[in-house]
Amino acid sequence: MILALAGGVGGAKLAVGLAARLPPERLGIVVNTGDDFVHHGLSISPDLDTVMYWLAGINDAGRGWGVADETWAYMAALRQAGKADWFQIGDRDLATHEYRTRRLAQGDTLSQATRLLCERLGVGHAIVPMSDRPVATIVHTGEGALAFQDYFVRRQCEPAVTAIGFEGVENAAPSPGFAQAMADPDLEAVVICPSNPLLSIEPILSLPGVREWLRHRRVPAIAVSPLVGGKAIKGPAAKIFAELGLDVSAAGIARHYRGLIDCLVVDEVDAATVPSIEAEGMRAAVTRTVMRSAADRAALAGEVLDLAARLGAGADA
Amino acid sequence: MILALAGGVGGAKLAVGLAARLPPERLGIVVNTGDDFVHHGLSISPDLDTVMYWLAGINDAGRGWGVADETWAYMAALRQAGKADWFQIGDRDLATHEYRTRRLAQGDTLSQATRLLCERLGVGHAIVPMSDRPVATIVHTGEGALAFQDYFVRRQCEPAVTAIGFEGVENAAPSPGFAQAMADPDLEAVVICPSNPLLSIEPILSLPGVREWLRHRRVPAIAVSPLVGGKAIKGPAAKIFAELGLDVSAAGIARHYRGLIDCLVVDEVDAATVPSIEAEGMRAAVTRTVMRSAADRAALAGEVLDLAARLGAGADA
Repeated sequence: MILALAGGVGGAKLAVGLAARLPPERLGIVVNTGDDFVHHGLSISPDLDTVMYWLAGINDAGRGWGVADETWAYMAALRQAGKADWFQIGDRDLATHEYRTRRLAQGDTLSQATRLLCERLGVGHAIVPMSDRPVATIVHTGEGALAFQDYFVRRQCEPAVTAIGFEGVENAAPSPGFAQAMADPDLEAVVICPSNPLLSIEPILSLPGVREWLRHRRVPAIAVSPLVGGKAIKGPAAKIFAELGLDVSAAGIARHYRGLIDCLVVDEVDAATVPSIEAEGMRAAVTRTVMRSAADRAALAGEVLDLAARLGAGADA
Repeated sequence: MILALAGGVGGAKLAVGLAARLPPERLGIVVNTGDDFVHHGLSISPDLDTVMYWLAGINDAGRGWGVADETWAYMAALRQAGKADWFQIGDRDLATHEYRTRRLAQGDTLSQATRLLCERLGVGHAIVPMSDRPVATIVHTGEGALAFQDYFVRRQCEPAVTAIGFEGVENAAPSPGFAQAMADPDLEAVVICPSNPLLSIEPILSLPGVREWLRHRRVPAIAVSPLVGGKAIKGPAAKIFAELGLDVSAAGIARHYRGLIDCLVVDEVDAATVPSIEAEGMRAAVTRTVMRSAADRAALAGEVLDLAARLGAGADA
């Protein structure tokens, strides 16, 4: 069993590649829920939805978020009513939020609601929220503390970040599916997808027991760098790394994950960073990490899985 | 760090012994919440309360449950109002239930409410609910399926048990404190207290990932048999074992915990069962397990800790 940790689009892309390589029973995808929020009375889980839409093959590839062939009657109605319209919700997307909101109101856990949504969309691989308890990513900036979507969407990541916190994380246990995967004797490897390390992966690692488990696991852990040539493919990772005084490079990613992973996969353009990655006490693997097509995604996933198998065999020897 | 798994009175007694031997930072007590229920609008956690009252030193030693120096105005009022009075709630006990109910209604987790209750009672050692999600032990009997307290208190364990289920357990993650203890690199040993294996310990082991974790842990796990000379010190363990066709002896306990523990501690009167315990692929340790006094509790805890240290050293060699 391969356990993948993922945030939004970067994570979704590698998850799609892994799902193309592995049958459902051999893959578990644990997804960040620190970005979740309630908006117009709707329980919205942006990262879960992104991963789900990608795995269902209904994601809008052009926009990069939401559902393809989307219509916008709900947004038009919001605007007409003078309600907040800074967060885009398409009509097909709305159906997801409404279904989740109703199930949660009926007492279902987020894990249960997610499982039902995946069934509706024909997603066979397990997509699991990191926790069934609310965790709220708070972005501390020069303009004060901002709720995640406030920072990310309304303010377009403009304010300089001074710190990042995860409200409620100390009371949020890993979800049942996540707990089960961590304890699974058939676990073969952990894959940290190329999602934002500070905004998407850090909430998962901050759940009680998870960082300790990762530090002491007996199977290989591999991360794919979300920075390529010192830039993020998408999103504010590079900007935030710089604002926090971190090294904006694959080596900076290695430093961030030091002690938690055995190997960092970096892009060919970052081949020169290999010695500084190895200086952080881990291996480096160089390959093409930019995923523009289904073939790219499956190829990167295949390389990560081969790497995991080699590292696992090495550990046994 | 020693992680103890406990149910009601038998578990509380050994927990008190362990607390006498270990400073707060070296002991975590994870408690069954399958018996929890809502009664007269109150959120009641019988096993958490029993362990908490024992550790606070305010338990009623004579009655065996509840708080010492209890008064009964609330029960009198219930009877006068013609309300159900089959579950005893003393006035001091009521204060616990009311506080917990209020905190949960305000959105606290059961872990948070328990921590606050322990603070109020001056309990320094960590008492942690097995999960923050509701799990309901259902006792299937010749008279149909009964909620736990219905079976245990109202029907006084009279109906013959045919099966036991744990409603909601598949959606109940281990609590944050439990998750953290399982992943703690400083974990030294797991102690399964002499609580009812089927009603008190089984709900804990049935949480997602827990049985797998116990099976693959790297530290010693030791259980103390709740059966002495084929009888339970307290409660229906022997009766239920017999009704389910299980071997009502220390050897039956060993069979039940096979693969999950390294050693079963049995009473001197059960010395003859040692070969059949060893036949289950574990060690047996013989000592006095009946805890009538504080000295008994500390003595048994000391023996269990010595055993854990010896087994741990052996594993390293």
